[in-house]
Amino acid sequence: MRIVLIGFGNLGRALVQVFAEKAEILREHEGFAPKIIAAVDDSGAAVEARGLDMKTLVNLAKRREKIEKYPGAKAGRSALEVIESVDADLVVELTPTNIKTGEPGLSHIRKAMEAGRHVVTSNKGPLVVAFKELDSLARKKGVEFRYSASVGGAIPVISLARRLMSSNEILEIRGILNGTTNYILTRMEEENVPLEMVVREAQELGIAEKDPSLDIDGIDTAAKLLILHNAVLGGDLKLSDVEITGIRKVTPEAIRLAKEAGYALKLVGVARRGELEVSPKLVPLGHPLSVGGTLNAITFKLDLAREISIAGFGAGPMETVSSILADILEIHRSLG
Amino acid sequence: MRIVLIGFGNLGRALVQVFAEKAEILREHEGFAPKIIAAVDDSGAAVEARGLDMKTLVNLAKRREKIEKYPGAKAGRSALEVIESVDADLVVELTPTNIKTGEPGLSHIRKAMEAGRHVVTSNKGPLVVAFKELDSLARKKGVEFRYSASVGGAIPVISLARRLMSSNEILEIRGILNGTTNYILTRMEEENVPLEMVVREAQELGIAEKDPSLDIDGIDTAAKLLILHNAVLGGDLKLSDVEITGIRKVTPEAIRLAKEAGYALKLVGVARRGELEVSPKLVPLGHPLSVGGTLNAITFKLDLAREISIAGFGAGPMETVSSILADILEIHRSLG
Repeated sequence: MRIVLIGFGNLGRALVQVFAEKAEILREHEGFAPKIIAAVDDSGAAVEARGLDMKTLVNLAKRREKIEKYPGAKAGRSALEVIESVDADLVVELTPTNIKTGEPGLSHIRKAMEAGRHVVTSNKGPLVVAFKELDSLARKKGVEFRYSASVGGAIPVISLARRLMSSNEILEIRGILNGTTNYILTRMEEENVPLEMVVREAQELGIAEKDPSLDIDGIDTAAKLLILHNAVLGGDLKLSDVEITGIRKVTPEAIRLAKEAGYALKLVGVARRGELEVSPKLVPLGHPLSVGGTLNAITFKLDLAREISIAGFGAGPMETVSSILADILEIHRSLG
Repeated sequence: MRIVLIGFGNLGRALVQVFAEKAEILREHEGFAPKIIAAVDDSGAAVEARGLDMKTLVNLAKRREKIEKYPGAKAGRSALEVIESVDADLVVELTPTNIKTGEPGLSHIRKAMEAGRHVVTSNKGPLVVAFKELDSLARKKGVEFRYSASVGGAIPVISLARRLMSSNEILEIRGILNGTTNYILTRMEEENVPLEMVVREAQELGIAEKDPSLDIDGIDTAAKLLILHNAVLGGDLKLSDVEITGIRKVTPEAIRLAKEAGYALKLVGVARRGELEVSPKLVPLGHPLSVGGTLNAITFKLDLAREISIAGFGAGPMETVSSILADILEIHRSLG
């Protein structure tokens, strides 16, 4: 499979390393031999029709170098131009997320589909801004479009939803979709300390951003809930359609009282068809959503199976790459 | 799709009802129009090449009647003879489980595969006794063989495993695979009472059998763990290869002490390649395996994604039928 890789940050680098480490097993078990024929980041583009040298790419990845350091890379070449002109089967879009504009990922994905390339992405931005448009464009152009890693990181939540909805009606989706807030709430409970203290701890551990507002104000949860809604329940809702309450007002006392009554206090997104809400909610201890630490968890309410829940790590480069790779392999198999 | 239904107990009856209730949505969304051309139970067989009348079948199901009551059913006709002689695409095997002999399901499945029919089953018996043989026979005959409902009921654990193992190495599988013991342990904790009292309660509620030993001695968990091992990790282990300790010796005090230390005491099956164990274990509260009530849960330990867990109801006719139907639809799509 001839692949163009757009984005060479944590995820792009981890993907290259996994391709190299698992080369033999992927070839033997799946008959899958990826060839990265172009890699692009904001420093430039490396293009080689016979495939870039994996050892060189892996070394760049390990040293956290930019693509301009690949021998023969061109500094001025843009991702859009490479996507259009290089003859690839698949474009893997892993640039940074912007949930307001969707860019630059949105333009990359549009261009890839227009050029008849399959697309795998982990980028929430384009999906938040234009899921319906991209989904329709993929169908029109007859290309595969997979985005498992955009919601729940390592958790194959979209693929699980597809299996469940073949035999069940999905009545509701509930999710803990942000590991940072789940870590914060878990630590507040364990240590009985206020939010600000735990946020500082999380920042020191690299779990929370310098500006933690996207997480603790519930925006990141809302973005993922929106993607789940539009992709699984169907529709074309926008981020502004989500009713959002974050966790800034949650106190250690509230968490303690909840626990005494047999509940955990969690930031939960709830989606029903046409209806989206993110807010702190009580989850019964012993319920599959009552997971701690940085875990994410999603519960589907169903007409036959009643409830199916899935949990795992929603972030981390290797965790996320496991979903990206599974998507790539599904496309590989669908091409037969 | 031309279907032969073997077994008309809780599951067979629920499947017939779901086929009828979802007929329109299955036709529209999946292009799936099931025709039950034969239904067999221990009372006899009803066969009709153009398809049995669904209204009549649904009425039999609702009244919990046997197949002999279907107009024109033949009392003497055996399942084996019907499987061989009736020209079907798919045999759905839903007879009662016998984990020692695998019969009568084992002979039914062998006969179906020999005759070139695809097979869907929820029956643990044949899988415990002869997974490897049946898996090989299906490949040799070029037929599909699906058995999602045999482990975890409504939980699509096998299908999840297949997705995860495409990009991950599965290092270990841990599972709470028996809802009855999980209910018993949960109630012992809630009420601080000994096992025998809770077993009696569970029997009155229909959650535990009159002879609860298959559940509380860990045999049922071991059977499911064995199927997961052979189907997912690969191999040909037998029930006698599982080291089994049940929950008879678990006291309310042990459960209370565990809880005080932040753990739940659960009956857990652990599978590594070639190594199977069932025993009471401590699970940290807040871990996805620490689910309560009659829930089942399974955790996969993985090289990239670290841990993915799935939870849901492991029993109940409608819950289990949701897995059986999803398997049937996967075969329908694969025939494309």
